[in-house]
Amino acid sequence: MRRSRGNESRGKLLVVEGAEGAGKSTLVRRIGDELARAGRSHVECREPGGTPVGDRIRDVVLHSMHMTPRAEAALFMASRAELVATVIVPALGKGTIVTLDRFFLSTYAYQIHGRGLPEPDVRNANSFATGGLVPDLTVLLHVPFDEGLRRADVRGSLDRMESSGHDFHRRVQDAFELFATSDWQRAHPECGPIVGVEGTGTEEQVWSRVLDVLAERLTDTFALAGRHRR
Amino acid sequence: MRRSRGNESRGKLLVVEGAEGAGKSTLVRRIGDELARAGRSHVECREPGGTPVGDRIRDVVLHSMHMTPRAEAALFMASRAELVATVIVPALGKGTIVTLDRFFLSTYAYQIHGRGLPEPDVRNANSFATGGLVPDLTVLLHVPFDEGLRRADVRGSLDRMESSGHDFHRRVQDAFELFATSDWQRAHPECGPIVGVEGTGTEEQVWSRVLDVLAERLTDTFALAGRHRR
Repeated sequence: MRRSRGNESRGKLLVVEGAEGAGKSTLVRRIGDELARAGRSHVECREPGGTPVGDRIRDVVLHSMHMTPRAEAALFMASRAELVATVIVPALGKGTIVTLDRFFLSTYAYQIHGRGLPEPDVRNANSFATGGLVPDLTVLLHVPFDEGLRRADVRGSLDRMESSGHDFHRRVQDAFELFATSDWQRAHPECGPIVGVEGTGTEEQVWSRVLDVLAERLTDTFALAGRHRR
Repeated sequence: MRRSRGNESRGKLLVVEGAEGAGKSTLVRRIGDELARAGRSHVECREPGGTPVGDRIRDVVLHSMHMTPRAEAALFMASRAELVATVIVPALGKGTIVTLDRFFLSTYAYQIHGRGLPEPDVRNANSFATGGLVPDLTVLLHVPFDEGLRRADVRGSLDRMESSGHDFHRRVQDAFELFATSDWQRAHPECGPIVGVEGTGTEEQVWSRVLDVLAERLTDTFALAGRHRR
């Protein structure tokens, strides 16, 4: 988690999502740099973790030998509940922009589509954890399946989620593609607006695409930055 | 967790509940001894914990410095989901009697009445963790408020739940007394049948009371033992 201070009057929750190796953490860092340059108050977090108890949960959920899908989902929810109540909601209340690496869509992709848990159950559990918080915007990065796995693989040793097998990750990838469609988004208002962005190419190419999206969808916060670039 | 084997044809889920210092773990041990003497297949568990991941969660939930009520509830649910799916349901399927130290009623007492979470939210989260499993019988031990705290206190250092303050434990105690009423039980069929038992007096006196209840309410399993005693 990284913080900086500025003089924004109203907070926004900006989520970055995508499968393994899509480029999420790089993008969160670039957004943070942009906000810092513009003098905007912001906080960067990632899930699971981002709080003292959340970091302990992160270790349990990513580095246990085995757990059932419902236990896994409940652990992600525990970490999320703590992050929402102690970091995200207080920050938004102070007018801060919160950038979050993974949120609802990861739960929907991994626990519903990947693990096969019933959607209404996961949706209820998620609502329990968040108290109904809705992101202002989710940027959903897409990279081809094989490229994402290759990028994740070269980072080194895989955690329990990353090493869940080819078929699992294929279902997760397909789910993220589904979430970018307008039909899916209409049926899931609890997830807020989602914009799919191509994550292939150089870091600068991806950043340029994302900045255009941010300038258009979060105009108050990013308009100047977007126009300045083009 | 302790196991023994026998030749029972149908499993039962028997829960022991009550506030701090009510005598739950002693009672679970006595029930286990009785079942072993009768040659009944049985498993003893306690919440949170009872599985590899559950024991790690137990450590996080009882020995973190601070967490929000929803994170705490979700952690208990994660431990419960793992225990139900990997231990309780398989054991019941093999005709085993499962004796459980704390279950739904502890969640209802500590998270709803103690922490103040909304009941429908906790009920949904609990159902997510258990997949709708209902105990065959819950024995709810009552001891006066001051005696329970004194008993818990002499055991030594207090965990995070035990050290949550006098008012918290008063609300929990009042909740357990409420759960023994028939009105409450009619409104909460998901908790199954609950019998309140006076937990004051010597261990033998309490055990004699409980054995009478077991002989009456789980006749197939405990009738002989109960008649033998009286």
